Amino acid sequence: MKCGLVAADGAVLHRETRPTPRAVSGSRGGGRAVLDALLETVVELGQKATADGHRVRAIGVVVPGVIDAATGTVSAENLDWVGTPVLAELTAAVGEDVPVVLAHDVRAGGYAELRQGALAGTTNSMFLPLGTGIAAAMVVDGSLVSGDGYAGELGHTRFVHGDAAELCACGQWGCLETVASAAALARRYGARTGRTVDGAREVLELLAAGDPDAAQVWDDALTVLVDALVLYTTLVAPTRIAIGGGLVGAGETLLQPLRDGLHARLTFQREPEIVAAVLGEEAGCLGAARMAWDRVAADEGEGTA
Amino acid sequence: MKCGLVAADGAVLHRETRPTPRAVSGSRGGGRAVLDALLETVVELGQKATADGHRVRAIGVVVPGVIDAATGTVSAENLDWVGTPVLAELTAAVGEDVPVVLAHDVRAGGYAELRQGALAGTTNSMFLPLGTGIAAAMVVDGSLVSGDGYAGELGHTRFVHGDAAELCACGQWGCLETVASAAALARRYGARTGRTVDGAREVLELLAAGDPDAAQVWDDALTVLVDALVLYTTLVAPTRIAIGGGLVGAGETLLQPLRDGLHARLTFQREPEIVAAVLGEEAGCLGAARMAWDRVAADEGEGTA
Repeated sequence: MKCGLVAADGAVLHRETRPTPRAVSGSRGGGRAVLDALLETVVELGQKATADGHRVRAIGVVVPGVIDAATGTVSAENLDWVGTPVLAELTAAVGEDVPVVLAHDVRAGGYAELRQGALAGTTNSMFLPLGTGIAAAMVVDGSLVSGDGYAGELGHTRFVHGDAAELCACGQWGCLETVASAAALARRYGARTGRTVDGAREVLELLAAGDPDAAQVWDDALTVLVDALVLYTTLVAPTRIAIGGGLVGAGETLLQPLRDGLHARLTFQREPEIVAAVLGEEAGCLGAARMAWDRVAADEGEGTA
Repeated sequence: MKCGLVAADGAVLHRETRPTPRAVSGSRGGGRAVLDALLETVVELGQKATADGHRVRAIGVVVPGVIDAATGTVSAENLDWVGTPVLAELTAAVGEDVPVVLAHDVRAGGYAELRQGALAGTTNSMFLPLGTGIAAAMVVDGSLVSGDGYAGELGHTRFVHGDAAELCACGQWGCLETVASAAALARRYGARTGRTVDGAREVLELLAAGDPDAAQVWDDALTVLVDALVLYTTLVAPTRIAIGGGLVGAGETLLQPLRDGLHARLTFQREPEIVAAVLGEEAGCLGAARMAWDRVAADEGEGTA
């Protein structure tokens, strides 16, 4: 868990990282242990803020899962949460007078990039982190898209067809995520060569060293990423796309082929810029803080109306 | 050109249809003739309104093209317009005191379906008319998406791969529109059989009569439409999709296979309803009127502020 204390002007007053208890799916209490660790973290950070002379105005929590905005419940496979009443538990832990904002981690990261990062100044854009998984934060007509918490699953759209399609963890076949995520690069390199690699990082090192198998899995990833960017551009018309996540560590080795591929494929569409996201692993945490401060501002606006 | 006079409460006071001059691309003045016909129509309808004792408060014009909202210019291949200053010409023709709203025809149709048709009450949904071409009107988080006039080109996303892909009029290969538009059904049936048919309507009649070639081109269309609905659902999370255009005349022959296909393919996604659009060919005209009255309301709101 990446967490921090953030002032109204965006200044990060305190940062820390805490372990998340392992949530073994189906095990008894795995999800409960995760939730307890979250509650403890929030309460202790509040105590630290108070001890440091600050006042906690709002709490932003982002999670890698589907958030039901109406009920404040969260379903997240990796955390072993199924309709877990996260908002109610957080509110019980911190008290009714401190508002709690729940958001999706990628959307929160996209919001931070929009407000203070690579997407600043855009009204139609996308933040696409390529990490263990792939999801998109969509900015449309000036607003971050929610879709009741369901939108943006570009990683689970199909870009591999026929016999080459692999089964995705989501139950569909040929998803973008099965070829272009950091996890997929490592897995697919291992499947081709029989060797175990230390994640996408090692595949990128092998690529730089001229390894032909690394080049092949990399080219496969670029191909489906270009497909995904063409599709998103055609449907949603962004002016800028910020790529994030672990793979953007490859820099221009990733970005320039994406630009070239997109340029070659687009015909009538408006061509977006392809840039690197700038906030890195901190994006989700900064976005959570921004959203929490937005809530404070909205509540104050109501109070004075 | 479908046109009418519409009261503030949505009542249609007058309807008429006028021919559009043929705009031969590249011919001298084709686009000018279309624009002149539009200006004449708008002026004459205004005269009729006045003669009937009404006051024209605003004008809504929808076109099948890309509208640059900042400049009021329109590019539309079928009308031979390239950056044509439609807003300025309309304003010059009707006077500065009558506001003119320009919109994309499919988005206007979707807006009418949202306000008074098959999408009423939704906050995340799509209007997908399957006509000569295919474009989508996207409703996201309660608003109709504009994307600066570029969004919604689902008809020009690729769903046919490899050697089977046909070149689309847009310059890309394997677009949805090359297989699932009304024009594509007729063209593909003709290509299979060597026979010329009277549009998609005749293909649907042949389908109903058990013609195996009609069944094959229909199945091809259903396959890519299911792909498109899965993709849209995964990325944008609609709760309802309203199918319109000529093909929806097939009724449940179209809708039930789309529902079945979508149900079979979705895994973690929220499953949308698939329904028929209800406003038919009038949707665009009604949407134009709604948007024009929205402008009146917005201007009045400013006036009293």
